[in-house]
Amino acid sequence: MKNIFDRKITSKFLYTVLVAFSVASCSSPKSADESIPASETDGNEQRGQLASWQDEPRDRIMDWVTSATTEGNSGFIPIADRIAVFDNDGTLWSEQPIYFQLAFAIDEVKRMAPEHPEWKKNASIKALIEGDMDKFLSGGQNALVEALAITHSGMSVEEFDSHVKAWMNTATHPKSGKHYNEMIYQPMLELLDYLRANDFKTFIVSGGGIDFMRAWTEEAYGIPPYQVVGSQLGLSYVDSLAMPELIKTPELYFNDDKAGKPVGIYRHIGKRPVFAGGNSDGDYQMLQYTSTGEGSRFGLIVHHTDSVREVAYDRDSHIGQLNKGLDDAAKYNWLVVDMQKDWKVVYPFEMGNP
Amino acid sequence: MKNIFDRKITSKFLYTVLVAFSVASCSSPKSADESIPASETDGNEQRGQLASWQDEPRDRIMDWVTSATTEGNSGFIPIADRIAVFDNDGTLWSEQPIYFQLAFAIDEVKRMAPEHPEWKKNASIKALIEGDMDKFLSGGQNALVEALAITHSGMSVEEFDSHVKAWMNTATHPKSGKHYNEMIYQPMLELLDYLRANDFKTFIVSGGGIDFMRAWTEEAYGIPPYQVVGSQLGLSYVDSLAMPELIKTPELYFNDDKAGKPVGIYRHIGKRPVFAGGNSDGDYQMLQYTSTGEGSRFGLIVHHTDSVREVAYDRDSHIGQLNKGLDDAAKYNWLVVDMQKDWKVVYPFEMGNP
Repeated sequence: MKNIFDRKITSKFLYTVLVAFSVASCSSPKSADESIPASETDGNEQRGQLASWQDEPRDRIMDWVTSATTEGNSGFIPIADRIAVFDNDGTLWSEQPIYFQLAFAIDEVKRMAPEHPEWKKNASIKALIEGDMDKFLSGGQNALVEALAITHSGMSVEEFDSHVKAWMNTATHPKSGKHYNEMIYQPMLELLDYLRANDFKTFIVSGGGIDFMRAWTEEAYGIPPYQVVGSQLGLSYVDSLAMPELIKTPELYFNDDKAGKPVGIYRHIGKRPVFAGGNSDGDYQMLQYTSTGEGSRFGLIVHHTDSVREVAYDRDSHIGQLNKGLDDAAKYNWLVVDMQKDWKVVYPFEMGNP
Repeated sequence: MKNIFDRKITSKFLYTVLVAFSVASCSSPKSADESIPASETDGNEQRGQLASWQDEPRDRIMDWVTSATTEGNSGFIPIADRIAVFDNDGTLWSEQPIYFQLAFAIDEVKRMAPEHPEWKKNASIKALIEGDMDKFLSGGQNALVEALAITHSGMSVEEFDSHVKAWMNTATHPKSGKHYNEMIYQPMLELLDYLRANDFKTFIVSGGGIDFMRAWTEEAYGIPPYQVVGSQLGLSYVDSLAMPELIKTPELYFNDDKAGKPVGIYRHIGKRPVFAGGNSDGDYQMLQYTSTGEGSRFGLIVHHTDSVREVAYDRDSHIGQLNKGLDDAAKYNWLVVDMQKDWKVVYPFEMGNP
């Protein structure tokens, strides 16, 4: 995805926000038995076999992994180098009609407003608090960035983490009615498990906010916080308290998007990955960096082709635009996954309750 | 340690550099049978029992770990939260008479000079190249920072990595005559293995350069690159080549020292550690951040008291100064390890060849 703190968000994107939120904002508590079971890092048999993938893409993935894990094979990769990186929005979970983190920010402005009378000094935020979405959006990119900044800073990292977790347990998606962390892709969960069962380390490398993701990625994907790379705001150590805290501050510290992704990968991981999965041109450089290293490599693009089970979009989309990636997929031998044809199911909830 | 890119290096420190390098700069190739075996991440029995520790500190560490890993115990810590962080210079390996990374930079200036005639435009660097250490040091902090910058940037991350590895295999310490990666602390290797055997994740959190450490920490400590946090220079993705590369650039991007350590920890790990080890006031905030979290915590300070086997220094030292840490050790219940009394051996090479 594009970094959502980036101020260069198009007006068409703003329109999408408007449409989305004219039908959204319905929240309901999530009962315990609806909760998603934690992803099993040791892999269960079904996921381990990439059961939700059709034969052709599954065989291509499995052939490559078999080659990478067979000693003596020309494609063999030592365990220490088995680094797999995945974008998050549009690659591991959905990103339409708006990035879920932006939905969080908008919900949070409304929820937190009573504690922050000073927020109404900003006309756009005042409009949002008062439910006037038209006026909020007329504030343009600055209004959205302001909504993100005030809900993502001015508190300790622990407080922010608890805000994200609470939102994830209550807010629901305007189209599916599901909790956002239920809108993860079953075939990608299987792929993560399959790679881990073959001694790959799996990392998220996303334009989304690192702290926003870390609040739920371990439960959803089996990926611990120290294997999550993302965009970052400021962070300040405050020791004037009995319990010293790290306080989030609003400046953009690192933009983990486009050419920032290889940089973020090296800063956090310190190795060139051998496997990369993405879905948009924001992932182009991460895929390119991965695929042009020496030795055996695998690149994968999730192509959003399914207008029934999910949303169909690519070259002309203002969220998750995929243009250059499609053009160069053959050149770099990237597997372009056709969601409609290649995935037997999209979301775990389609599989029914066990 | 103090961040070595920091320009606020005292003149006394410069004097130390001078003394050190009047006797240093002897390099010899390291033969294969001299090489240090890789640290075993699964732990061998001897290290697993903290064999090089005297009874008192060993019992205190083991009692805490037993409590942290015993379900039902009030000090129990779930596996996902067993995060242990360690400073590097002066905590896992020696740092006297000068930070080893600075020794690397000085050696590298001399080695690389023939490829860089432009370096002689800087009078201090010219003096260093021509062997005039007095004149080089008269350039003060700026001269040292310049030596670091030119040897740590202007090349791909892979090239830099190969430079560090080559230096580590040839350069030797002016006092011990050993390769620098042989001057790691045997009791700390045992502690790392012991914690890992008890399902702790071990991380390095150092003021030293992240890329400099990653070149050798996996072999020396069993700590992979993605578990190393350190100070960072700039990084730029260059895709105008057949094989796109990350190029190191000279600006200071992140200073992983003092209050920067809790920040670096959160940016990379995303959790508050439960165990921290350090040796200087540069580690104070990391130890404080760790020790003031909720639940069971362990903080450890390596106190350099051994003038025979290593170097004795603390409150007045300009390398690894330990002042506030000693004052507040009791307040935070930090274990102050007396190297002379508490460690049966300091370096692995004291144990003889097996």
